Amino acid sequence: MNRESAAPAGAGAFDATADIVVVGGGGGGLPAALFSRWNGDEVILLEKAEQLGGTARKAAFWYWVPNNVRMREAGIEDPEEDFLRYAARLSRPQQYDPSSPTLGLSEWEFAQIRAIYESASPAAELLAERDALPYRWCEAVPDYWAELPEDRAPIGRVFVPEGARESMSDGGLVGVATMSAAAERDGVDIRLRHRVQRLVIVDGAVVGVEATGPQGTVRVGARKAVIFASGGFTHDPELRANFLSAPAYGGCAAITNEGDFVRIGSAAGAQLRNMNQAWMCPVPLESAVSRDPSLSGMFSVAGDSMLFVDKTGRRVVNEKLPYNELAQMFFQWDPLRGEYPYLVLVQVWDQRAQENSASDEYGRLIVGSTGASDAHVLRGETLEELEDAVRERAAKYATVTGGLALADDWADNLRASIARFNEMAETGVDRDFGRGERAVQQLFNGDVREEPGRTNPTMWPLSASGPYYAALVTGGTLDTKGGPKATPDGQVVDDMDRPIPGLYGVGNCVASPSARAYWAGGATLGPIIAFAYRAANAATKEQQRTVSSSVLSSSGHDREELAWR
Amino acid sequence: MNRESAAPAGAGAFDATADIVVVGGGGGGLPAALFSRWNGDEVILLEKAEQLGGTARKAAFWYWVPNNVRMREAGIEDPEEDFLRYAARLSRPQQYDPSSPTLGLSEWEFAQIRAIYESASPAAELLAERDALPYRWCEAVPDYWAELPEDRAPIGRVFVPEGARESMSDGGLVGVATMSAAAERDGVDIRLRHRVQRLVIVDGAVVGVEATGPQGTVRVGARKAVIFASGGFTHDPELRANFLSAPAYGGCAAITNEGDFVRIGSAAGAQLRNMNQAWMCPVPLESAVSRDPSLSGMFSVAGDSMLFVDKTGRRVVNEKLPYNELAQMFFQWDPLRGEYPYLVLVQVWDQRAQENSASDEYGRLIVGSTGASDAHVLRGETLEELEDAVRERAAKYATVTGGLALADDWADNLRASIARFNEMAETGVDRDFGRGERAVQQLFNGDVREEPGRTNPTMWPLSASGPYYAALVTGGTLDTKGGPKATPDGQVVDDMDRPIPGLYGVGNCVASPSARAYWAGGATLGPIIAFAYRAANAATKEQQRTVSSSVLSSSGHDREELAWR
Repeated sequence: MNRESAAPAGAGAFDATADIVVVGGGGGGLPAALFSRWNGDEVILLEKAEQLGGTARKAAFWYWVPNNVRMREAGIEDPEEDFLRYAARLSRPQQYDPSSPTLGLSEWEFAQIRAIYESASPAAELLAERDALPYRWCEAVPDYWAELPEDRAPIGRVFVPEGARESMSDGGLVGVATMSAAAERDGVDIRLRHRVQRLVIVDGAVVGVEATGPQGTVRVGARKAVIFASGGFTHDPELRANFLSAPAYGGCAAITNEGDFVRIGSAAGAQLRNMNQAWMCPVPLESAVSRDPSLSGMFSVAGDSMLFVDKTGRRVVNEKLPYNELAQMFFQWDPLRGEYPYLVLVQVWDQRAQENSASDEYGRLIVGSTGASDAHVLRGETLEELEDAVRERAAKYATVTGGLALADDWADNLRASIARFNEMAETGVDRDFGRGERAVQQLFNGDVREEPGRTNPTMWPLSASGPYYAALVTGGTLDTKGGPKATPDGQVVDDMDRPIPGLYGVGNCVASPSARAYWAGGATLGPIIAFAYRAANAATKEQQRTVSSSVLSSSGHDREELAWR
Repeated sequence: MNRESAAPAGAGAFDATADIVVVGGGGGGLPAALFSRWNGDEVILLEKAEQLGGTARKAAFWYWVPNNVRMREAGIEDPEEDFLRYAARLSRPQQYDPSSPTLGLSEWEFAQIRAIYESASPAAELLAERDALPYRWCEAVPDYWAELPEDRAPIGRVFVPEGARESMSDGGLVGVATMSAAAERDGVDIRLRHRVQRLVIVDGAVVGVEATGPQGTVRVGARKAVIFASGGFTHDPELRANFLSAPAYGGCAAITNEGDFVRIGSAAGAQLRNMNQAWMCPVPLESAVSRDPSLSGMFSVAGDSMLFVDKTGRRVVNEKLPYNELAQMFFQWDPLRGEYPYLVLVQVWDQRAQENSASDEYGRLIVGSTGASDAHVLRGETLEELEDAVRERAAKYATVTGGLALADDWADNLRASIARFNEMAETGVDRDFGRGERAVQQLFNGDVREEPGRTNPTMWPLSASGPYYAALVTGGTLDTKGGPKATPDGQVVDDMDRPIPGLYGVGNCVASPSARAYWAGGATLGPIIAFAYRAANAATKEQQRTVSSSVLSSSGHDREELAWR
């Protein structure tokens, strides 16, 4: 289904109508549809893909719920003012002002983060009560900036779908399954393979959408509201290149996340916000370039006897930084040479790490024999052989990396980098980059061989003999954070901050107040669920549009013969 | 004149009409109006400010003209394919692919840089021939990346208005004066104090604009086209924060550059491009925060016995980097501490630099007794006194710098930084940051005391005794680079790359193909003049709109009594 013009359509008959039309059936759309349905609204959900779930399906589906019921039961205090300080401090660090009524944020951003605090917990509880998303409390998972003085509740805010495995990596599959089942059970009218192309606008109000379905264009009317939850623009290279702060490669968002609401919302006069930021994640170069739909971001860089080096063979980064921070390191600019010197880094590990840290979870690059692809893995019996393999692979990608090539003395420098790394690993103290110093860095360490007595489980000396392994890593997005600006109740606003009647948005398709922050694991889905709840509750109060009968056909006249499902 | 809704207006009578309506009377609008007028079109130029000139008035008005007549006369070859390689290599370094037909750029970007090569020289020649912009060839000025192998014509591309003083710093005043005089002479109808608020669109075609003038709203019809040249969004903090790749403070664009065409163009369905990039420049913190309309970017960081240190007192950057590159250093992110550690740097100099490098040109911070403001200058007889002064000033700005404060041992670290700097200055080799290594770094060195025999005129040891001086520096924009996407002929396009009939744009109000590059001094105005020429030549070929007579009043019916001038 190709993209068509996003210019709004006008009056005319609809093929189907509902109170609420939800666009997108992932981590934002499913909750929005459920909350709307539970409010008594008729809901049609249009999903572009062949299946529900969007990006959430691929995620661990942690969700970050400040001041949640479990914390309160356990006596963990998470007062609003401290939560707001933590969020503001990280969202706009250069503007953070604890003495300001909005903590240095814009009024809109401040209102948005208050909305998260207020609604994430009731939203999560309602989803659980209705058996749409039973959860397990991850009481030991720390925030990503747990050490900041502003973080007064550094652990306890994370939930995961109840049935997820111990490692939580399949949380998305579980959560999407339970929410989808609840949507079926409770009568959400789900129509897959429908790509919404544009809004239907009559007299300045959004009264429906036009979508491309399996049988062609269909017009779906919305008596109360259209709620977009169609994801970000991770898979639109043009939007990435022209909006994101870093020239990130693709990422692990659902492959259907092509920025549809950037265009559709703009065409209705919405203002765009936070278009420069993304939820970032390192990614294996090969899968990012090939736009592999199964691509997982590297949420966890596995291995202790493992390091990253640059094209000169030098270690330049703390490999265990949280993924959002690590991903940004690839885009440091060298103002003298006019290049991104770390655009592609090389992960190097030894046989010991291969044997003890292999995993097919969380996008780890050290894979074992579980069936996960190892097409990205290069191998050499010696560092010189490894250099040959890396050089050959890099050459294959030179046209999409600005001509990336290894330095002539790469193996020599790598040997020196390993020597220094090994010396520091012996002591457990990374004097260069502080690897393993923070709780969050250990959280994502992955499996490593137990080494009794060591103080830093993220580091161990690499072996003096091969085989050695390597993979090419770059920075990508989990998904983007920008899009139309919406009120704390999800109402999309125009250039004068006036709500566009009937138009709502939640999730990665609208602007996130997180700005540059990745507050914690689940800081994506927790707020998204909160906003889905608020949008559904606001949309249900919209008066049914009084457009002429020729515009909104009654549901009895739906052209059911189209059999969209 | 406050901003109003940018939602397009519809049919209705006009207060005035012309063939071409130009919005903005700066470095893009004046040439666009002149070229249009010389094509025989009636032109109304609407300028928001009380005077013509926009950002160009404040600039040195270098303009970069590849393969120009003077180069050809002097036998300097500047072949197109090499020019394109140089431009592409710097615009999108991470995509640059010399083997690709578009060199790794998008087709649109490639077509745009070809248009610059093709049209900058004829445009410059025509402006000179008509006595609107006589020029002086700056035959010795190098490109900013002259050392790159892709730059086959590293000197010779820069022009400056003919009557500019030797230092060229008043080029903008001269160029704006000559172009304004030509516009008056040749019958461009110039109307100041008119803020265009929205387009008038009838049957999908742009047929005019609505502006707020001294007497209220006026509607100005355009029989052929409206050409926007209204500047970037340097002075809209919301747009800066939500689009730019770096959280830059304000800058030296005309204070009226508030992103008007981002909103107005979007409301007509234009797609936005290159919204993440800006022409960047260091700026003195105080003027940037106060939005001083007279703010000059620091195009030249003056002084040899001068260095920059961070809030810990450590030297962290090559102070003589070209301004666009230097400005980006302020926004390096520290992923462990969650802050921009270099958001504000401290320029420190000694009495020797004060006496020999003072200047009121090019935004230099070492000012003498010429009347330029020295409100940003801090002073101490000792480094400890200097620390006190800097600490006090930083505290004053803590609410807008994320709580910036000097480290306790700042003066000690500064002393050590000076010692190391002095040691390197003795040898003329900056082993830490390569200061003075490139031609462009020496170009902007400013006045320094002659020191016979030294090899590096950008460095000299700081005195062991006071007084010492300091100033707070951060990163800002000269102006931004993003906005509606336009074809190489200036036609603004919608989300399907279809030209929006009657709508054109040139200059910093539309997307620049330079992406992240600042190719050379004058790489702003040279291309802008080229695109003004192309837009005027395309717009003149537009058929006069056949909208009903009630929409376009004849010029005889203009309500001249409004006396807009």
